[in-house]
Amino acid sequence: MAAEHNNTLPDGSVLAAIDLGSNSFHLIVARIEHGEMRPVEVLAEKVQLGAGLEQGRLSADAIQRGLDCLSRFAQLLDSLEPTRIRAVGTNALRQAKNRLDFTLPAKEILGSRVDVIYGREEARLVYLGVAHTLADDANSRLVVDIGGGSTEFVIGERFEPQKLESLQMGCVSYGRKCFPGDVINAKNYRLAYDRARVETSHIRHRYRAEHWAECVGSSGTLNAIESIVTLNGWSDGGITRKSLSKLQQKLLSFGRFDEIQLEGLSENRRNVIVPGVAIASALFDILGVEHMRTSRGALREGVIYDLMGRLRHEDVRERTINALVQRYSADEDTAAVVERRCRTLFSATAGSWRLQDEDWELLHWTARTHEIGMAISHKHSNRHSAYLLRNADLPGFSQAEQENLAILSQGQRGKIHSDTLDDLPKPERRRLRYLLVIIRLAVRFKYVETLAELPDFGVTADDSSLALGFPEGWLEEHPLTLSELEQEKAYLGRLEIALSYS
Amino acid sequence: MAAEHNNTLPDGSVLAAIDLGSNSFHLIVARIEHGEMRPVEVLAEKVQLGAGLEQGRLSADAIQRGLDCLSRFAQLLDSLEPTRIRAVGTNALRQAKNRLDFTLPAKEILGSRVDVIYGREEARLVYLGVAHTLADDANSRLVVDIGGGSTEFVIGERFEPQKLESLQMGCVSYGRKCFPGDVINAKNYRLAYDRARVETSHIRHRYRAEHWAECVGSSGTLNAIESIVTLNGWSDGGITRKSLSKLQQKLLSFGRFDEIQLEGLSENRRNVIVPGVAIASALFDILGVEHMRTSRGALREGVIYDLMGRLRHEDVRERTINALVQRYSADEDTAAVVERRCRTLFSATAGSWRLQDEDWELLHWTARTHEIGMAISHKHSNRHSAYLLRNADLPGFSQAEQENLAILSQGQRGKIHSDTLDDLPKPERRRLRYLLVIIRLAVRFKYVETLAELPDFGVTADDSSLALGFPEGWLEEHPLTLSELEQEKAYLGRLEIALSYS
Repeated sequence: MAAEHNNTLPDGSVLAAIDLGSNSFHLIVARIEHGEMRPVEVLAEKVQLGAGLEQGRLSADAIQRGLDCLSRFAQLLDSLEPTRIRAVGTNALRQAKNRLDFTLPAKEILGSRVDVIYGREEARLVYLGVAHTLADDANSRLVVDIGGGSTEFVIGERFEPQKLESLQMGCVSYGRKCFPGDVINAKNYRLAYDRARVETSHIRHRYRAEHWAECVGSSGTLNAIESIVTLNGWSDGGITRKSLSKLQQKLLSFGRFDEIQLEGLSENRRNVIVPGVAIASALFDILGVEHMRTSRGALREGVIYDLMGRLRHEDVRERTINALVQRYSADEDTAAVVERRCRTLFSATAGSWRLQDEDWELLHWTARTHEIGMAISHKHSNRHSAYLLRNADLPGFSQAEQENLAILSQGQRGKIHSDTLDDLPKPERRRLRYLLVIIRLAVRFKYVETLAELPDFGVTADDSSLALGFPEGWLEEHPLTLSELEQEKAYLGRLEIALSYS
Repeated sequence: MAAEHNNTLPDGSVLAAIDLGSNSFHLIVARIEHGEMRPVEVLAEKVQLGAGLEQGRLSADAIQRGLDCLSRFAQLLDSLEPTRIRAVGTNALRQAKNRLDFTLPAKEILGSRVDVIYGREEARLVYLGVAHTLADDANSRLVVDIGGGSTEFVIGERFEPQKLESLQMGCVSYGRKCFPGDVINAKNYRLAYDRARVETSHIRHRYRAEHWAECVGSSGTLNAIESIVTLNGWSDGGITRKSLSKLQQKLLSFGRFDEIQLEGLSENRRNVIVPGVAIASALFDILGVEHMRTSRGALREGVIYDLMGRLRHEDVRERTINALVQRYSADEDTAAVVERRCRTLFSATAGSWRLQDEDWELLHWTARTHEIGMAISHKHSNRHSAYLLRNADLPGFSQAEQENLAILSQGQRGKIHSDTLDDLPKPERRRLRYLLVIIRLAVRFKYVETLAELPDFGVTADDSSLALGFPEGWLEEHPLTLSELEQEKAYLGRLEIALSYS
C-alpha cells in the first residue's frame, strides 16, 4: 500500500480548507483541540471568479486572478501534509466547462485535492460548519444559506444532515433578472418574491415547519439582514417575519440599489440586499418560518470538519455507499466476492502501476455498487449502475469522484468504447485505465468462481502488461475460465494492456 | 371521451391473441367461459421471421412472409372488435431496428394493437399462460421457458408472478455458438453446458430451489425433452436430473444433429435438442432443480388472460405504476394535482385533437410518475424520470408505451429539443405532440397553484392552436401566472402549437 492509515488524529494536528467561491476565495487553517477546530489563520480575497464566467467558460484573466490568490495562500500551507489540505469549488466552477484549466494548475500550486462539488454536497458541508457552531442539542433544525446563485436548504439533527436541497435562486441572479437597471419598485419586488415562492414550493412538502424545531441562517445575506433588523430595533435578536416586513417597507422607499442607506448594511451588500429580502420573505412564508437565528459557521468550517472525519476513518462516503446499496437492494455477497478479487489484483499491481490509497477507495466503492443498476433492469445493468453513480446525490463525493465511479461501473464488462477516458485529464486517464483492468478481471471471475474456486495465482505487471500465472495444467482443465480470459484479452487490448496467462 | 369503458366482460365474449414469434406466428381465438378461456381457433405458421434478420434488420422477404400470414389470420378476426385483439412481438422484433416496417402495416391489417415487448414482459405473459393450466394451489413455483434465443425464468404464486428474468441463452443461439458444423462431441457439449452454468449463475441467489416449491417447464424444447424421457422409460413423468443424464448420454452417441434418432423427437426439434439438454442440465444443477413437470400453457394464452384483465380494468399496468411510485417515494399529492389539471385540459381538447382512451392512459401514468426522478436528484429530475421509465422493467407495458412515457416525462418542462419526436411514426408524433402540450401546461400550473387557486378557465383548441380564457382581469392580477404562460408560449411554438390566453 502506498501510504499508512492513521486511525487517530491527535490534538494539535493542523488542517486547512479553501473555499473557491464564486465571489471570494477563503482560506482557513485550524488546529484540532479536543475534537473541535480552533482557527489559526483566516484569509479571504475577493477573486470574483464568477464575474469572469462568459458563456460557460472562465476567462484567462479570472483563472489568473484565482491562481495568483492560491499562490499567496500556499505560502501558509508549506508545512502541511497534502492529505491535510482540501480545496472545494462551488457554483462558478460547477458551471465552467473549462474548469480543468483552473483545477489542474491549482492542484500543482497547493499540492492537495481540489474538488468541484455539487450543490447538495455544498449544502451538506455548510450544515457541518453551522452545526459545530451551535449547542449540541438534539432538536432538528433547518439550515438555510442564501448565496449569489443558489440557496441551500438542509434539515438535520446535531451533526447529521438528513435532507439536502439546492435551489437555483440567489440574490445576485435575482437582482439581475427582476430589478433591471437596479431599479427598486413594488412590481419588481413582487416579481422576485413570487419567483422565490414558486421556486421554494418545489420543496415545500418536505421542508415546511412541521419537519423541524428551529431555523438557522448562514450566509452573508442572512447575517446582514440580522444585523440591520437588530440595529434598527425591529427585532430583539434573530430575524422574524415582522422585522422582514419592516425592512422590506424601508427598502421600497429607495429608488435604486445604490441609494440605499441603512444602519448595519455594508457597502458591498447594497446590490444584493433587496433581492435577498425578497427571497428570505418568500421562504419564511412558504415554509412557515417564524424566527430564524443566524450562524457564522460556513462552508470552509464544514470542509475542515469533514476532513477530520476522513482522516479518522469516519468517512461519510462509506455511509453514502451503504445507503445506495440498500436503496437498490444490491446483493452484498456478490459484491464482497468482487471486492476480494479486486484487492488481490490491486495489491499485486499497485507498485508497478503506482496506484495510491485513493485508487483503492475507488475500486472498493465500485465493487460495492457494481450491481445497483440491476434494480432498474438486468439488461445493460452496468449502464444503469453508471447512470445512478453519475447522477445521484452522493454526500461526500466530488463531481470528479462520481464521474470516475461511473466510468468504472460502466466499463466493468462488455465493450470498452475507445473514447471512454478521453474527457479525463491525462494523469486521471492513466490510473482509470489500470483500475478498469482490475475491476473487469474481478467481474469476469465473479461467475466463474461459482463453478470452481480459483486457485491462488501469480500476478506480474508492468506499464503495459499484466501476466497471470495459474498452477500447472489448471487452465487446461478449466476451459471456460480459459475462454473468459481469451475474450478479456481482446477487450484489454483496447486499453493498451497486454494480458497473458499460463 | 372517445370510447366507453366496460367494467365487465360477459361470458361468451370472444378474444384473440397473436404471438409474433421469431420462428412461428401463433393465433388463438378464445371464448370466455366462467372466467377461463376455451380455445375456439388455434393456428400456427412457420414464418421464420428471425431467419430474415440480417445485421439487425428484417429482410423485405421476411416482412412479406409475416404480413401474408397476418392477412390469413385476419380473415378469422373480422367479427371481433379491435380492442379484443392483441398481437405481441418477441425476440426477432425486439432486435429488428426496422421493426416499424413490419408493425405499422401489421396494425393496418389486423386493425388492432401490435406491441413489441421486452424479455421480462414476455416472461410475465408466459407465466400467466402457464399458471392458468395448473391447479390453483398456493405453492410458489418456478416457471422456465427455454426459447431459441432467450430463456425466461419466473417465480410466482397462483396467478401472480413475483420475480421475472430473461437470460440471453437459447437452444438456437447455443447450437450455432457451441456446435460448429452441427458436430456433437463431449467438448462441444461441455462448452454449452458451462456457458449455460455461468449464465444461470447470474440469477442463482434469487432463483435457487429454496425460493420455490415446484418447477414447471414451458416451451417446445422442454415439452420435447419430457416426451423423450417418458417414452424411453427414463422417467415416470416429468423431467428428472437422472433422466436428463440418460438423455445426454444417448445424444452424445450421435455424431451430428441430423443423425439423431430418438423416440418422441420430432423432425423439427433435432437441431436444437442437444443444446436444449445442455441448458436444461445446467439450470437443474445451478438452481437445484430435482424434478420439473411441463405445461402446454404459453405466451399466447398469457396474452388472452392479460387482455381479459385489461378489459375488466384489472390492469397490471396500474400496479406497475403504483410500485414505481412507491420505490422512488414520489409525492402522491403533487401527482394528483397535476393529473387533475391534465384531465381538465384533456377533456376540453380530446375532440379537436382526436385523442383516445389510450392517450388519456399515457397522460395519467405520466402525471403519476412525473417526479420519480427526484429520488435520483432534484437537478434534471425530468431526465431521470425519463431514464427510469425508458429502462426499468415495467410489467404490462410494451416497449413503445415505455418510450412514449419517457418522451412525455422528459418533455414535461424545460427546453423541447426539436428532434424529440423524430424517431416516432407519424401518427404517434401527432398524438405525442398534443400530449406534451397538456402535460407541460399541467406542470407549469403545478407550482403556481400553490400560490393562488386557478379559477375555472375556458379551453378552445384546433389543430395547431390552444386558447385559454381566464375570467376578466384575472391574469393581470396574477403577473407570475402570466409570465409563466408567456414563457410556455415560446416553448410550445417549437411543437407548432400557438398558445394564446386572455
